Amino acid sequence: MSSLKLAVIPGDGIGTEVVTEGRKVLDAALSDVKIEAHEYDLGARRWHATGETLPDSVLEEIRGADAILLGAVGDPSVPSGVLERGLLLKMRFALDHHVNLRPSKLYPGYASPLAGDPSIDFVVVREGTEGPYVGNGGSLRTGTPHEVATEVSLNTAFGIERVVRDAFARAQARPRKKLTLVHKDNVLVHAGGLWQRIVREVAPEFPDVEQDYLHVDAATIFLVTNPGRFDVIVTDNLFGDILTDLAAAITGGIGLAASGNLDVSRTNPSMFEPVHGSAPDIAGQGKADPTATILSVALMLEHLGHNDAAAKITAAVEADLAERGTAARSTSQIGDAIAARVAG
Amino acid sequence: MSSLKLAVIPGDGIGTEVVTEGRKVLDAALSDVKIEAHEYDLGARRWHATGETLPDSVLEEIRGADAILLGAVGDPSVPSGVLERGLLLKMRFALDHHVNLRPSKLYPGYASPLAGDPSIDFVVVREGTEGPYVGNGGSLRTGTPHEVATEVSLNTAFGIERVVRDAFARAQARPRKKLTLVHKDNVLVHAGGLWQRIVREVAPEFPDVEQDYLHVDAATIFLVTNPGRFDVIVTDNLFGDILTDLAAAITGGIGLAASGNLDVSRTNPSMFEPVHGSAPDIAGQGKADPTATILSVALMLEHLGHNDAAAKITAAVEADLAERGTAARSTSQIGDAIAARVAG
Ligand SMILES: CC(C)[C@H](C(=O)O)[C@@H](O)C(=O)O
Ligand SMILES: CC(C)[C@H](C(=O)O)[C@@H](O)C(=O)O
Repeated sequence: MSSLKLAVIPGDGIGTEVVTEGRKVLDAALSDVKIEAHEYDLGARRWHATGETLPDSVLEEIRGADAILLGAVGDPSVPSGVLERGLLLKMRFALDHHVNLRPSKLYPGYASPLAGDPSIDFVVVREGTEGPYVGNGGSLRTGTPHEVATEVSLNTAFGIERVVRDAFARAQARPRKKLTLVHKDNVLVHAGGLWQRIVREVAPEFPDVEQDYLHVDAATIFLVTNPGRFDVIVTDNLFGDILTDLAAAITGGIGLAASGNLDVSRTNPSMFEPVHGSAPDIAGQGKADPTATILSVALMLEHLGHNDAAAKITAAVEADLAERGTAARSTSQIGDAIAARVAG
Repeated sequence: MSSLKLAVIPGDGIGTEVVTEGRKVLDAALSDVKIEAHEYDLGARRWHATGETLPDSVLEEIRGADAILLGAVGDPSVPSGVLERGLLLKMRFALDHHVNLRPSKLYPGYASPLAGDPSIDFVVVREGTEGPYVGNGGSLRTGTPHEVATEVSLNTAFGIERVVRDAFARAQARPRKKLTLVHKDNVLVHAGGLWQRIVREVAPEFPDVEQDYLHVDAATIFLVTNPGRFDVIVTDNLFGDILTDLAAAITGGIGLAASGNLDVSRTNPSMFEPVHGSAPDIAGQGKADPTATILSVALMLEHLGHNDAAAKITAAVEADLAERGTAARSTSQIGDAIAARVAG
């Protein structure tokens, strides 16, 4: 591929700032590739101006891209759920982003809130298009003392199998080759039972991968008492949401947490974004750390097969982190420093 | 009350060992009360022997007690879900245990896995009879590549209101008077919206209680980066399950985590149990720490209005913890030491 069609959604708050740095580093890493980037104005600003979250015409345009880079969307002025359901989740479902990939690594020289800075290096493979996220809920006698509200978690063998297989393959490609299924099969017996069955059925294809199971509540305990026990975690949409924020926290905060929303069948463009939000309180001040976005760019390049460029970025980030002192640097200073390492 | 009818379910593994110590301390704390204890053989052993989990006749007997003390049930030899759904959850639902109370406190001299041993003193009020725990799920084309499995979360204004009101009252009775609602209302819009509405409606009855909201994923971040921000947390059944295990972990492990399953209407006996499980790997060796069970007895006494006796136990546990050295003590040595402090 000598050209790359990139859909860019800077979004709100610090989203625009960190995306600028992500693109800077992308340019440095792919100097021999023609990058055609198209920016889309989506998020709180557009919703306030037009009432639109993700118009179908925009979605169709984005569908033609090779990949999507998103900063962050959201603002306290927008009611909870509007942009989440109308933009972020709409995109994940419409583009069949069934693998939500979230690596967690404690970088050398970076402090964890956990005592003793244990070694942490695992990746969560979160299902992205099913489970309690399907939006299949409702409410009866709404607003009255007799209201009943439901949320339905939908889980399919098809949907689980493709994610489980992807997780096994990722585990097989890592030195420790260990896959942990996380669910709550002692309470959610039908969904949990299905996850268990699929893992059992796919496992023989990956005989060299060690496999175990944890209830989600027990998994949170191990994440703080023994995070080194994890290599690859595969889990459902909601548990994955919870575990990846916790995972980001134990490695020193979501300033570093990168994320990919992948259609591993490659029918639709995959989307890459930092796990953090739009942080309106520090927006426009050059205070945001663009590292999570830059690491998301590395995930994107890996997904697109530009493995050398991805490795260059990861190495540059690790070197930058190792040398980070206490002196505060601006968003663009961090981006410049990492881009320079990539280029050099 | 000069007598107390206590239903005791020692259960499996270390359950019987820790319950012995809990009763020892109970006797010491309530020396002026006639305690009529009746033990019920429930758990893995009974299931293997008879196939029964919680026979209706046993349930009806237990219903006549003033309170229930449970050790732990479960064993790897029992398929996941059998004892959970057939015994533990059956009891919670049948006895309308709608408030699951789980205090989290980092005791002086006790090490947290969090760096710097931050101050931690909060309580989670978890809804216990609704949400994703209702067992309303199913599976279609089971065992085939076309299986679809569902889990339905049921939430009622009635069920949420009684828990929210209880949580507000607990917050009001504490020095900091702060209540945090945890949910995921940006995705689970119907259930989350109902929780938000009920909190908004009940809040004016407690004008001196400060109230805020966190998404469950963000809550896990704060639990490891700033646990001091929490005072009382109110949340649904599944989120409460996850958060209380995490909360137990950050205060030094579930060896200390106590729990009450309350029917705050007092129609049915409430149930008190340590959060930890039956730990078959260390069962029968006198290695289990009975402190969580002893603290559960204190919760029981508080619920029954024996506030002085409850305070005595808590003080004795705190004193015992403060003096714990590195020398290992047996289960009964710890129980004896705490009982002696309570008696003295
Ligand atoms: C914003 C929200 C819909 C989203 C989620 O719950 O998936 C976020 O928390 C995430 O983890 O990407
Ligand atoms: C054993 C299980 C059913 C239970 C739950 O999920 O509620 C346990 O994890 C708990 O927290 O008491």
